[in-house]
Amino acid sequence: MTARSRFNIGMIGTGFIARAHANAFHQVARFFETPLELSTRVVCGRNRDRVEAFRRQWGWEEAATEWESIVARPDIQIVDIAVPNALHKPIALAAAAAGKMVFCEKPLGLTLEEAKQMAEAVRGLPNLVWFNYRRVPAVRFARQLIEEDRIGQVFHYRAHYFNQSGTDPAKGQTWRYRRAQAGSGAMGDLLSHSLDTAVYLNGPIHELSAMTHTFIPGREVDDAVTAMARFSNGSLGSFEASRFGVGRRNGNGFEMYGSKGSLHFDFEDMNRLWFFDATEAPELEGARNLLVTGPNHPYSANFWKPGHPLGFEHTFIATVADFLDALAKNEAFHPNFEDALSTEHLLNAIESSAASGQWISLA
Amino acid sequence: MTARSRFNIGMIGTGFIARAHANAFHQVARFFETPLELSTRVVCGRNRDRVEAFRRQWGWEEAATEWESIVARPDIQIVDIAVPNALHKPIALAAAAAGKMVFCEKPLGLTLEEAKQMAEAVRGLPNLVWFNYRRVPAVRFARQLIEEDRIGQVFHYRAHYFNQSGTDPAKGQTWRYRRAQAGSGAMGDLLSHSLDTAVYLNGPIHELSAMTHTFIPGREVDDAVTAMARFSNGSLGSFEASRFGVGRRNGNGFEMYGSKGSLHFDFEDMNRLWFFDATEAPELEGARNLLVTGPNHPYSANFWKPGHPLGFEHTFIATVADFLDALAKNEAFHPNFEDALSTEHLLNAIESSAASGQWISLA
Amino acid sequence: MTARSRFNIGMIGTGFIARAHANAFHQVARFFETPLELSTRVVCGRNRDRVEAFRRQWGWEEAATEWESIVARPDIQIVDIAVPNALHKPIALAAAAAGKMVFCEKPLGLTLEEAKQMAEAVRGLPNLVWFNYRRVPAVRFARQLIEEDRIGQVFHYRAHYFNQSGTDPAKGQTWRYRRAQAGSGAMGDLLSHSLDTAVYLNGPIHELSAMTHTFIPGREVDDAVTAMARFSNGSLGSFEASRFGVGRRNGNGFEMYGSKGSLHFDFEDMNRLWFFDATEAPELEGARNLLVTGPNHPYSANFWKPGHPLGFEHTFIATVADFLDALAKNEAFHPNFEDALSTEHLLNAIESSAASGQWISLA
Amino acid sequence: MTARSRFNIGMIGTGFIARAHANAFHQVARFFETPLELSTRVVCGRNRDRVEAFRRQWGWEEAATEWESIVARPDIQIVDIAVPNALHKPIALAAAAAGKMVFCEKPLGLTLEEAKQMAEAVRGLPNLVWFNYRRVPAVRFARQLIEEDRIGQVFHYRAHYFNQSGTDPAKGQTWRYRRAQAGSGAMGDLLSHSLDTAVYLNGPIHELSAMTHTFIPGREVDDAVTAMARFSNGSLGSFEASRFGVGRRNGNGFEMYGSKGSLHFDFEDMNRLWFFDATEAPELEGARNLLVTGPNHPYSANFWKPGHPLGFEHTFIATVADFLDALAKNEAFHPNFEDALSTEHLLNAIESSAASGQWISLA
Repeated sequence: MTARSRFNIGMIGTGFIARAHANAFHQVARFFETPLELSTRVVCGRNRDRVEAFRRQWGWEEAATEWESIVARPDIQIVDIAVPNALHKPIALAAAAAGKMVFCEKPLGLTLEEAKQMAEAVRGLPNLVWFNYRRVPAVRFARQLIEEDRIGQVFHYRAHYFNQSGTDPAKGQTWRYRRAQAGSGAMGDLLSHSLDTAVYLNGPIHELSAMTHTFIPGREVDDAVTAMARFSNGSLGSFEASRFGVGRRNGNGFEMYGSKGSLHFDFEDMNRLWFFDATEAPELEGARNLLVTGPNHPYSANFWKPGHPLGFEHTFIATVADFLDALAKNEAFHPNFEDALSTEHLLNAIESSAASGQWISLA
Repeated sequence: MTARSRFNIGMIGTGFIARAHANAFHQVARFFETPLELSTRVVCGRNRDRVEAFRRQWGWEEAATEWESIVARPDIQIVDIAVPNALHKPIALAAAAAGKMVFCEKPLGLTLEEAKQMAEAVRGLPNLVWFNYRRVPAVRFARQLIEEDRIGQVFHYRAHYFNQSGTDPAKGQTWRYRRAQAGSGAMGDLLSHSLDTAVYLNGPIHELSAMTHTFIPGREVDDAVTAMARFSNGSLGSFEASRFGVGRRNGNGFEMYGSKGSLHFDFEDMNRLWFFDATEAPELEGARNLLVTGPNHPYSANFWKPGHPLGFEHTFIATVADFLDALAKNEAFHPNFEDALSTEHLLNAIESSAASGQWISLA
Repeated sequence: MTARSRFNIGMIGTGFIARAHANAFHQVARFFETPLELSTRVVCGRNRDRVEAFRRQWGWEEAATEWESIVARPDIQIVDIAVPNALHKPIALAAAAAGKMVFCEKPLGLTLEEAKQMAEAVRGLPNLVWFNYRRVPAVRFARQLIEEDRIGQVFHYRAHYFNQSGTDPAKGQTWRYRRAQAGSGAMGDLLSHSLDTAVYLNGPIHELSAMTHTFIPGREVDDAVTAMARFSNGSLGSFEASRFGVGRRNGNGFEMYGSKGSLHFDFEDMNRLWFFDATEAPELEGARNLLVTGPNHPYSANFWKPGHPLGFEHTFIATVADFLDALAKNEAFHPNFEDALSTEHLLNAIESSAASGQWISLA
Repeated sequence: MTARSRFNIGMIGTGFIARAHANAFHQVARFFETPLELSTRVVCGRNRDRVEAFRRQWGWEEAATEWESIVARPDIQIVDIAVPNALHKPIALAAAAAGKMVFCEKPLGLTLEEAKQMAEAVRGLPNLVWFNYRRVPAVRFARQLIEEDRIGQVFHYRAHYFNQSGTDPAKGQTWRYRRAQAGSGAMGDLLSHSLDTAVYLNGPIHELSAMTHTFIPGREVDDAVTAMARFSNGSLGSFEASRFGVGRRNGNGFEMYGSKGSLHFDFEDMNRLWFFDATEAPELEGARNLLVTGPNHPYSANFWKPGHPLGFEHTFIATVADFLDALAKNEAFHPNFEDALSTEHLLNAIESSAASGQWISLA
């Protein structure tokens, strides 16, 4: 592959998350020495006025209203799926059938079965799933500390993801609260992120038990989900995700406790990682407030200077940068459809466990 | 009961927690207008030198080495049990048989069966169990806010209790790690506190599922325990207690999320309660850092001035003060043996669930 | 002025801060419905390779190496100065003489005299000085709370700006440590920001006393500066800025204490504002942790969703957006050269006071 | 001096601070192996009912209403002065004339002149001034870190002491707001503590400049004071103390920035010390949240266990313990009248500087 090939993107979706994607496509080459170029060729949305406005504001060459019309276009190399969950599968399958690289929002499909089909379809094609939180610099630095054995044997991995979106009755009418559109509620929306990060940092989960709950009568999907788990590395896991975490806006975080140290993170403070080094003299032990903006932190050479906070969007920019880098090196990018399928296996097990009250093995 | 009657205490135990009790017996009348007086008559410990040293340092009139010799003494009105769990039952039963008021450290007994016998034995006698965290001013203020309906419908109650005591191999040889002496590990030691506080703040639990784990091979008791629960008020519960929470010294806390507000607390910051008022205008909503040292906070008129932190020992002093107040008013004191028996029911259900992998109903 | 006129920018500078400007010029129309369009026409830097690389990476149409060649070009409407302080004056004067709109990095000039000439030169031309911290959403929200009289009579305004840049001997060789290039050290680099924000939030300062210090022998500029001040509104001010604030990366913050409330802010936590409402019942008073990412917060409708943190660069984007909005409405933009001149008066007074040991009146 | 000699205390005062003293006299032998015993022989207060109530509640053998009647009693070895500032001098001089050991509340005298007389009077007699904050375990541990050269060359020492006591008009009528009773306002009440701690941690101050302010018309004393200083070790100092720090209850803290590390402390979080180790790899540098409750922390072997917070009163207990220890070893105790006289020199210089607007040298 010659350096600086150009890939044209066709993106389906014009909502909040599509903005984050579009921004990343533009910004990646500002901050990274990307080996490949991206062009924002065509954006697609059902409403003509809205997609046209999006096109103008976010610098796309064309606007379209039928996704079927663009996924197979010969001038498109990347199809990016940024629409409600129910459309992930048909678009991904069509794009894959046309040999496109496929980027897809999380969760992968409405069901495990869909996810399997999707992962099968893209096999052999470069692909990406937007579990963007893996590329929060603090999260990636957590991974680095784990790889450097600074946490040691892990005893506990605890994840939480709380927002308060579910308490607003008005939101109950959006697609996120309809089973046919969303597949699930807090599970797919929030917990899927927690699970992806957990596996990224702490490896596979081999058994779990869960409960789900819907606080609003008549609502079709889960408002909250809690799970206990055992990881393959012998650590215990606990997970809780809820749209009824009143007072939390985007409280996506984790704690890890290990023999050599511990880590704490919450996305509302996304530039910080708390690191406790248990190898210090006891009187000098204390969780360190690491401002993960450099020097020597992940992506810190790309963005601003130490002490200059990054925001939500940088996680998307870094995702695209790493994808392009992997592509140029002909390496697999993660998280991809296979990774997301693993998450779907976990979500499926959680749903089963919540229904049956039984522990589920993922062996 | 005439005002300022005097009660003589016989305390069994000379360890860390016995110091906290002894201190409370002395200090209560400094800070509270107690309606009744206490005398530290006799302290009992197996080792003569040690109990004599304790007697001198903590101002007891006599020292004894056989608990059997003092629990029935006519000049003793209160028997306080501050010894390893295995001795709780025999002492409590003997003291109750002699008609004494009984104070007992937590957890109540080694087993649910023991706890039942103990609760039965003290029926009709004033009694107390040292779940001291209920009387952290911030915890009591949390309860007040809940009673004033400032949290509204509760969605989530989350408890954690982490310390790192279990990672020290040397500690593995103490009584706390032997089943015959302790009954359980993190469950009785830590989780029992979390459960008592949870029920105090959020009411009864009606079903739960749990897992336990022992990280050190050969250790007889649980090092960690995790549970999911449903409370009778419809809220979801999650509990995690561990002696492998590396970096935490006494991380006993909770989070509550409700329709009108939320609360966060951790004992390592015992003078603070975080209160989020969800009835504020959205742009002014934020968790408030309440320094619960007055004015108008629980016990703040008794201790120092606003902004002057309290410590661990004040929870014991307030416990004794409230006991004496209840006694003078001929009212039931809480938490008592019945309350602690409820906690034992929960611990028993947790142990059963951890063994069977099934949800357990507490109906 | 017709809507969506297009303005071409000529930017002088290719360093760190020029990247932040370039980014803002591109991003402003993504996030704001700007009434006017900007084009990144030409970027200028001394080193041909470097400026060409910058041009490519940051999407400028042309690269130039002589600022003199571009400030008067008829196709340029805005000249943006992002170079070391010593060049601010000559470029600004040349650009103003050519009738351009002028954007200038802070501090305005090397000396008060230079600043006066510059402010005089741009009179009548739209102009801007990059005191970007005014447009941190949390800072702007602080101003809003003050305007809504939620702080009441101000008693204290305390500013700090600490980084640790000065302790690195290598940095001592850069232009920021040479008097001829920088004019001053921590004063112009850091304290100028603190002063601009202070006046923005708390109004004019009418007298002050200061000290400066250089820790490294032979260094030409101040490493640290401290000042006491009295504001016209009767409040007391304290200011401290230092390049020897070991452990701080970009600790630019303030505290305000007033009769109705108080505020705390630090840029290392740029998405948070701590607000204490003194009109609450005493037992419910506590500093609120406001995550200033919406809803209803400044710029929150423009950027992402509530709970999705913003970063350093958003302050520049919002600055440009507000400039364009003011321009379209034919209103004055702040902070402009006049505002920056006021800051230079304060810096000058601080330097005089530090030299004489006397209080200086700014009446 | 034989071990376990007994000293009888005569304490003058029955207010808030007298309670803290009385408590310390009782508690010291519980927590420390004191070489000498204390007896709470007689407490003295003007109001007979009040002093009698205090006697009963705090366990003094006798109550008296005239201080003159007790300071020279042969059965009293220690006279403890816990009354408004105006009485410090007459009582101290009388007690010293009678050869007593003298304990005195801060600030020492109403004026520098008084303080000189007092320091002169007690020369040769064991004496103590209740600058209790030196014995906050976190403060003492800070001193230890400094002595171990973990902070390196100090660049900045910053102190603040904010409460909101002054905004309450009712308090304006108490002795603390009358010059004849208090000598000064925030200066003697708050800043004296900041200065004592500063000198304890960072050594002598050799020059300073200050301002004071009274926000309430007609009030006789300063409500707030700010000072800039230069320490003998070459570091810069800044001090601010105010009774108008709305939202702060007892915000007595400091920051130190040095070449090897930095420290942050605030008494509202008295069990914590933030320590930044600048010798770490840059990516692992971050302020550590040290919970200074052991192991290996000052006084941690005396009080409770690690993770069990201490409170306000423990600073007084530790003060008495250290005094008795020094006495038994025939060593000088600090802070004593000489140390407090040094603080009075600083307060006097601050007052002069505030009046004249000039820097004052303390050479």
